[in-house]
Amino acid sequence: MEEVHADVIVVGAGVIGLGIAWEAARSGRRVTVVDPAPGSGASFAAAGMLAAVSEYHYQEEQLLEFMVHSAVLWPAFAASAGPGCGYLSTPTLCLAGDAADRQAFADLRSVQQAHGLDVRPLTLREARTREPLLAPALAGAFEIEADHQVDPRRLVAALLARLGEESVVRARAARLAWDGRRVAGVVLEDGRELRAAETVVANGLGARDLAGLPVSLPLRPVYGDVLRLRVPARVRPLVTATVRGLVRGRPVYIVPREDGTVVIGATQREDGSDAVSAGGVYELLRDAQALVPAVAELELYETTARARPGTPDNAPLLGRVPAAAGEPHDGAGCVPGLIVATGFFRHGVLLTPAAASVCLGLLEGVADPRWQGFRPDRFTRTTRPLAERSAAARSAAPQGGIR
Amino acid sequence: MEEVHADVIVVGAGVIGLGIAWEAARSGRRVTVVDPAPGSGASFAAAGMLAAVSEYHYQEEQLLEFMVHSAVLWPAFAASAGPGCGYLSTPTLCLAGDAADRQAFADLRSVQQAHGLDVRPLTLREARTREPLLAPALAGAFEIEADHQVDPRRLVAALLARLGEESVVRARAARLAWDGRRVAGVVLEDGRELRAAETVVANGLGARDLAGLPVSLPLRPVYGDVLRLRVPARVRPLVTATVRGLVRGRPVYIVPREDGTVVIGATQREDGSDAVSAGGVYELLRDAQALVPAVAELELYETTARARPGTPDNAPLLGRVPAAAGEPHDGAGCVPGLIVATGFFRHGVLLTPAAASVCLGLLEGVADPRWQGFRPDRFTRTTRPLAERSAAARSAAPQGGIR
Repeated sequence: MEEVHADVIVVGAGVIGLGIAWEAARSGRRVTVVDPAPGSGASFAAAGMLAAVSEYHYQEEQLLEFMVHSAVLWPAFAASAGPGCGYLSTPTLCLAGDAADRQAFADLRSVQQAHGLDVRPLTLREARTREPLLAPALAGAFEIEADHQVDPRRLVAALLARLGEESVVRARAARLAWDGRRVAGVVLEDGRELRAAETVVANGLGARDLAGLPVSLPLRPVYGDVLRLRVPARVRPLVTATVRGLVRGRPVYIVPREDGTVVIGATQREDGSDAVSAGGVYELLRDAQALVPAVAELELYETTARARPGTPDNAPLLGRVPAAAGEPHDGAGCVPGLIVATGFFRHGVLLTPAAASVCLGLLEGVADPRWQGFRPDRFTRTTRPLAERSAAARSAAPQGGIR
Repeated sequence: MEEVHADVIVVGAGVIGLGIAWEAARSGRRVTVVDPAPGSGASFAAAGMLAAVSEYHYQEEQLLEFMVHSAVLWPAFAASAGPGCGYLSTPTLCLAGDAADRQAFADLRSVQQAHGLDVRPLTLREARTREPLLAPALAGAFEIEADHQVDPRRLVAALLARLGEESVVRARAARLAWDGRRVAGVVLEDGRELRAAETVVANGLGARDLAGLPVSLPLRPVYGDVLRLRVPARVRPLVTATVRGLVRGRPVYIVPREDGTVVIGATQREDGSDAVSAGGVYELLRDAQALVPAVAELELYETTARARPGTPDNAPLLGRVPAAAGEPHDGAGCVPGLIVATGFFRHGVLLTPAAASVCLGLLEGVADPRWQGFRPDRFTRTTRPLAERSAAARSAAPQGGIR
């Protein structure tokens, strides 16, 4: 029984999966998204900074190019998702707590400028004119006009609404369904099988638990604590720009929303705990207050911890998977029917339009050579042979029929 | 129609109201408790320290006597409530952050000792032997054996279970029902009237909104932020005693529970905000870490803010209300059918058995002369005349019949 359920199955309904699904749907494809709880993973915690410039890290040139590419795509993507997604062209203000923090920003700026990125030093007087509630004792300020923001929870809601409830299967994908030579869809935890010509694995860290993948994905959880706070009327607006600070070498950000709330975050923990860290909350509040003392006046209404899907080089695992030597392939040497899109780490929200665009290209048979460096087998270089996958395929035989 | 619904109506199902109701029920009286959401006020936030000794404040001698009296009643009260209420005879360890904090504890101790209270200085070595995770740089430690703890949420659940669901009316009392000369029960927001021989007003700050009271109650909200955290296995037990600290003059406490969680609190805000204060959370985490650095390792799973019912002298408003001159009274000069029990401020959980005992005495016609100083009219001394109350009584005429 080879009945096709959809043209494309996307596993994972975080911002990446939904962005890919939306782009595929707009191209006229029938799309099904599979996720037991859409938008409840890293997207639920994310602050939504579109920080191609300020998130640049040394020696991540290819990733930077991809981030800048995605930032350029954002306005059109946001327009297609609808005004409800909370896209704002808020500028970003980088603030240094002390002289060493200022030097760190200045050093980074010289490399950012070498890459053609616009990072403008401000006098503290200029910074304070823009943001009157800044702390008195800051050491330096830089403005980045190009780094904007979106509200990831509103983005998830907007994309789900665009796709329509009929496109969403609220269940967990247990394994890829193989027909021997190609990926044919997924088998759900409850035994149901969904079939499609193409399957996109975009479920972040969940990809580790998806059986039947032909390649090992070196994902690791990097936890972050994120605070959501309400700004009382007496201190509104707390800030108008997104504030990114370094305070004694520790990063912290304050993202102001249209609704009078702010998001504060920036912890990175690899301690294996998905609970909110008391020490993390303490440091965020301490460092945010060092930049904007009135943070003490805010109402803390939510603390969230989530894991981001980290990779060894901080770049995504994005593309098709090369077929093992001597095995059937799609003409370009890859396993037919399978696309991987995970490992977006700190940049999932920013990279959503670019990931969606790359995946649409792959669905159309076009692999953009600029992003070949993100191929998902780059750390393993060995695709699992057919025999190994067949075991998974057999145990993945449909039980509940075709949905 | 004077059909009696119950012997006693208790307005308010926090620990105070439930304690009074339970004591009255145990004496054989038919009791009805009226509260739209039992246990959701200050009792929901409270840490449950039974801190008669360590909560002593200068010049609050009569309150101290009442607190010590209540601490003595606690074991028997806890036994009657059942083992589920989480009463523990955990000792209390007072820790000084710096020399000034130590001096503050030492000064207080000399007065505590003059009142016959046992506060024992410990060497830091002794303190560390008891609690290995204490910070290295503390300035002093004192042990108070007599200050124990209970879990207020479990206490609420235990008392509700003892009383039985049929004794609880989940609705808001809008006003006292008067029959002209005496309080005859309450009228609910939905118009239903409940009648009883005696009505006890024990709804904390809610008493301000109860119409028809013959006396003005000078209650004000004093907000507190309370954190609940889980202790990971690697740092268990975080502490075995209740830790009360002074850190640069600021109080903070850490109450360890049997289930591997701790409660951290001690903020007092009069800023009118019932939202969790970011600055409050920051200071609690900062000061708790100053005493026990491993607090940084904990998982923050709940932040709660609630208001305690404060009074001008920090003592409760507890007793019957004198009748106005020339008006009918109960033989002892008081308004018949009415008892007030609110304003327990920081001490509601500790004072629950004593409040229950006092109210039972009043129901039996016995006013303990030791607690006359807590009479609810002590700040006003003028009881509202009958005519004024009659207006309230008329507008409080039963609409929905007798329940």
